[in-house]
Amino acid sequence: MIAPNNGPADAGPAHPHSLEAAERPAPDPRFAPVAALLESFAAQDPDYSAQLCVYVAGRPVLDLAVGPNCAPDSLTGVFSCSKGAAAMVIGLLVQDGLLDLEAPVASYWPEFAANGKQDITVSQLLSHQAGILGIDGGLPTSHYLDSERGAEQLAAAEPLWIPGRAHAYHALTIGVVMEELARRITGERLQEIYERRIRVPFGLDFHLGLAAADEPRYRDVLHPLEAPSLPFIDPFGHLGIAVNSAAGFEGPDGRTHNIMDVPNAREVREAGFSAAGGTASARGMARLYAAASTGVVLADGSVAGPFLSDATRAALSREQVFGIDRATGLTGAFGTVFMKSQPRNDFGSWRAYGHDGANGALAYADPLYGIGFGYVPARAEALGTGSRGGLLSVAVRQVLLAG
Amino acid sequence: MIAPNNGPADAGPAHPHSLEAAERPAPDPRFAPVAALLESFAAQDPDYSAQLCVYVAGRPVLDLAVGPNCAPDSLTGVFSCSKGAAAMVIGLLVQDGLLDLEAPVASYWPEFAANGKQDITVSQLLSHQAGILGIDGGLPTSHYLDSERGAEQLAAAEPLWIPGRAHAYHALTIGVVMEELARRITGERLQEIYERRIRVPFGLDFHLGLAAADEPRYRDVLHPLEAPSLPFIDPFGHLGIAVNSAAGFEGPDGRTHNIMDVPNAREVREAGFSAAGGTASARGMARLYAAASTGVVLADGSVAGPFLSDATRAALSREQVFGIDRATGLTGAFGTVFMKSQPRNDFGSWRAYGHDGANGALAYADPLYGIGFGYVPARAEALGTGSRGGLLSVAVRQVLLAG
Amino acid sequence: MIAPNNGPADAGPAHPHSLEAAERPAPDPRFAPVAALLESFAAQDPDYSAQLCVYVAGRPVLDLAVGPNCAPDSLTGVFSCSKGAAAMVIGLLVQDGLLDLEAPVASYWPEFAANGKQDITVSQLLSHQAGILGIDGGLPTSHYLDSERGAEQLAAAEPLWIPGRAHAYHALTIGVVMEELARRITGERLQEIYERRIRVPFGLDFHLGLAAADEPRYRDVLHPLEAPSLPFIDPFGHLGIAVNSAAGFEGPDGRTHNIMDVPNAREVREAGFSAAGGTASARGMARLYAAASTGVVLADGSVAGPFLSDATRAALSREQVFGIDRATGLTGAFGTVFMKSQPRNDFGSWRAYGHDGANGALAYADPLYGIGFGYVPARAEALGTGSRGGLLSVAVRQVLLAG
Repeated sequence: MIAPNNGPADAGPAHPHSLEAAERPAPDPRFAPVAALLESFAAQDPDYSAQLCVYVAGRPVLDLAVGPNCAPDSLTGVFSCSKGAAAMVIGLLVQDGLLDLEAPVASYWPEFAANGKQDITVSQLLSHQAGILGIDGGLPTSHYLDSERGAEQLAAAEPLWIPGRAHAYHALTIGVVMEELARRITGERLQEIYERRIRVPFGLDFHLGLAAADEPRYRDVLHPLEAPSLPFIDPFGHLGIAVNSAAGFEGPDGRTHNIMDVPNAREVREAGFSAAGGTASARGMARLYAAASTGVVLADGSVAGPFLSDATRAALSREQVFGIDRATGLTGAFGTVFMKSQPRNDFGSWRAYGHDGANGALAYADPLYGIGFGYVPARAEALGTGSRGGLLSVAVRQVLLAG
Repeated sequence: MIAPNNGPADAGPAHPHSLEAAERPAPDPRFAPVAALLESFAAQDPDYSAQLCVYVAGRPVLDLAVGPNCAPDSLTGVFSCSKGAAAMVIGLLVQDGLLDLEAPVASYWPEFAANGKQDITVSQLLSHQAGILGIDGGLPTSHYLDSERGAEQLAAAEPLWIPGRAHAYHALTIGVVMEELARRITGERLQEIYERRIRVPFGLDFHLGLAAADEPRYRDVLHPLEAPSLPFIDPFGHLGIAVNSAAGFEGPDGRTHNIMDVPNAREVREAGFSAAGGTASARGMARLYAAASTGVVLADGSVAGPFLSDATRAALSREQVFGIDRATGLTGAFGTVFMKSQPRNDFGSWRAYGHDGANGALAYADPLYGIGFGYVPARAEALGTGSRGGLLSVAVRQVLLAG
Repeated sequence: MIAPNNGPADAGPAHPHSLEAAERPAPDPRFAPVAALLESFAAQDPDYSAQLCVYVAGRPVLDLAVGPNCAPDSLTGVFSCSKGAAAMVIGLLVQDGLLDLEAPVASYWPEFAANGKQDITVSQLLSHQAGILGIDGGLPTSHYLDSERGAEQLAAAEPLWIPGRAHAYHALTIGVVMEELARRITGERLQEIYERRIRVPFGLDFHLGLAAADEPRYRDVLHPLEAPSLPFIDPFGHLGIAVNSAAGFEGPDGRTHNIMDVPNAREVREAGFSAAGGTASARGMARLYAAASTGVVLADGSVAGPFLSDATRAALSREQVFGIDRATGLTGAFGTVFMKSQPRNDFGSWRAYGHDGANGALAYADPLYGIGFGYVPARAEALGTGSRGGLLSVAVRQVLLAG
């Protein structure tokens, strides 16, 4: 692992784009087995397309694209991987002393105290323990693309359980509340903070709000070839509320669309909502986590970042909850926003932190190994332990363990 | 949903029996797919017999019986669905200001403080968290049919776990403790309160204590055609204690009987013990939950009930515990007595509350949809998500969601 | 059950070895079905070899060895069954008033307070709740064979979770911390206390530190015939840390060995480390639990022990935690060190306490039945409900239940 640099968080280079150019990955032969694994996926399935990028100790060691449906620099929707990018802004607010994870949410956002929520802490809310999965009847698309309106509804909501007694993945609303916290504390949109302090300085192709100039590189998320046969999900049950199924996603044409098409709508990509509206390449995702965690090594050998101090990273990635998700019945493990590696979703050591997305994308840092990892399939596929993303993560670690 | 009527809880009509007669279900063509599903079960299995009744917004929209082994007005044992009827009495005690769910049980029942149980609250006890699953060696049948004797034993018992650290379904004893609380607080038997304030005024064919005059309508619970191959259950392990297997059920002939025969004994039906001694038709169960939750619409368009106020209903149906059951290793979700919908047992929205029974019977209210639901199979069958009762519940909600 | 004898804990006979000789099991025909089950295992598999010994009410009722790879008095490694023997010493410290299970660990071991561990209680630590699964990079073999060095590392460690929010089996480190607590409190090695106060007085063939004179009776643990196909275990993930996979087990030849070979190394057997370094026969294990729980009946009809009082036994065997193990994703149930019977590992009543081992060995007391049970297979096999050891435990209880 490279020596940490805990200087000013914004200490990125003045000309970020030169940064990426300076770091073309020198092929690292140790990682040939990982490349071979990715290629074996492509060999087994002519339609399979994906990007994989891995940083180790601040340098890219793999930066690959396979298959007909993506290029090395193409961008696509990365769904809940977006939460990880937004959480980096939460980290900067903590690091700046503006946000105390153990304070009540209502101390920053007084309206949130309604309906018995006055004692819920920021860390409880941001680790899926507050029971604010959504609103009966769902949040209209416009209310989370413009999260001020969504936040107003959530502030008034009654928790679905007695706070502290359960947790369930707040698939959509955790983005709304992150954005509201940022707005209340700084007066600025979370996406603007991300752009100014993280994406631009570190030259990251991971966007919360995709500029028009980058649109030509966007490729639609492809639906799974075989639609999974799902059981009925009650739109007013825990899971249905969490995935906002009562309102669904209303596209620009006013019709309700499949969840896989959410980022395929330009206004979603433009808004870049924190829960699931981000667009990225694998390269952008790996570099984000490297910049946060180890810093990235520049052409002159100097290091930009890490933009999170050891203390901030430890605070954010400390596990807040592990247990059976109230909505899915499956185990979940979360720090502050970030997922933690666990039996059902093995992506790293106990120090790893990251997030996956509904399309099978996976992005994380593992400070113990010095890894920044990004994987994006072009067509939606499975998540978790044993998935393609999961197997690639294992293969990367096996190389480092052997070496 | 009909307008709630939070007037006096007992505001039932003076001539209850005219009430049911006045409300023959007008066939509601929207629910034809639900009827078709029930009929498809019968078409697949000539022995299959069941009743299904659904109220929406206080009016019956389906009231069906299929198969050779039941009639529309026949009654059978509904096992733990009985707990839901008894819990309605607990609700009235809360509503009357006589019972505080957050008070220690021992404040109403001093003997309960023995063996470290002094701080256990009513809501902990009534959500299966107290660890009083039973007694080593089991409760004799006479001690739960006459629950004063059972309560004396439970008051002295040592919890099977440190209160607050686990939960497990108190299959039998939750009835004993509900009855003891009612007795301590009112001096009256829980069943008498139920009869006087709930069953008679609302004209419910759901009995905690079946009158001799109704006996001709009783049909024995039929055993499953294929006895399940069960693993050994240690009668002194958590599960064995919870199902009272050390003592078993001693029938009137002094012999130990299969659990499915418990309500087939006249003295059980007469006692109508709260844990599992109730008898009902699907119609009676659906109407109970409608009367509690939305009220029932009378022939003149007026509304009887709901007999629980919104506040009482919210207090009772608020989830108290979700997690892995210590005895079964499967997830459980409970409010105060009532089951909550969860992945393993999907019967409604997050606001739904109800109870199922060991024979596959299911009864609940879903205030969000305005549903009162009752389903009773004549022959014991599976429970939970994907069971016949569960699929019928889904079908009802799909009709309402379709508009 | 025999009358408990709660006299001085050390009240063993002066000439222990005469004790075992005096108690050759009179064949108890009631237990013939258990013997037949063991023999059926052997009949199905010519390689199968195992010992089974059962005490009831202080007398041996079965003491069997089958198959080519063990003799009635042979000894082998019993892996985590060792924890149960070491926990008996913890029990004596509690009984002597030297150790308060509810006190902070740091009150006995000040260095343990480092890194936010100052409030962790002894009962939390000894029920796998402290999050001290190990050390990044693993504990060298020499640091747990000589646990003073391992304890120094664990005292400095950062918990893997916020204490109280999760539990996971501390496969290796619970032994180190038991040994350190004994050393801090008494100045003596745990193994010495065990030898002096438990093993010798009660004549137990269950060794934490095998004397050279007993070596000829040792038989190597045999590897499973088919190596299980295991998924990747990250040595820096929770499970990898818990099983110390980063350091592995370094044998006397300086090479890393399969975990099944740990007790096959003489220096391990000699050190007898508490987590997994014990050697025993089934006879020794059953007798240990009988001596602790019911006492053992001597030839003259007098009773030696039980060496734990009812109060101590209750304190140790009271369940401290039940839930999903953070490392494995499977349910765990623990008292203080001892495992509790649960759906995934049914070995007794709610009062039972014991421990199994990685080779399929199982040892426990069930005070409700009066059982002391020991089972040791010669070749490593499965654990838990439905395993050979589990089925033999069921068979013993079925005999006693049949009367």
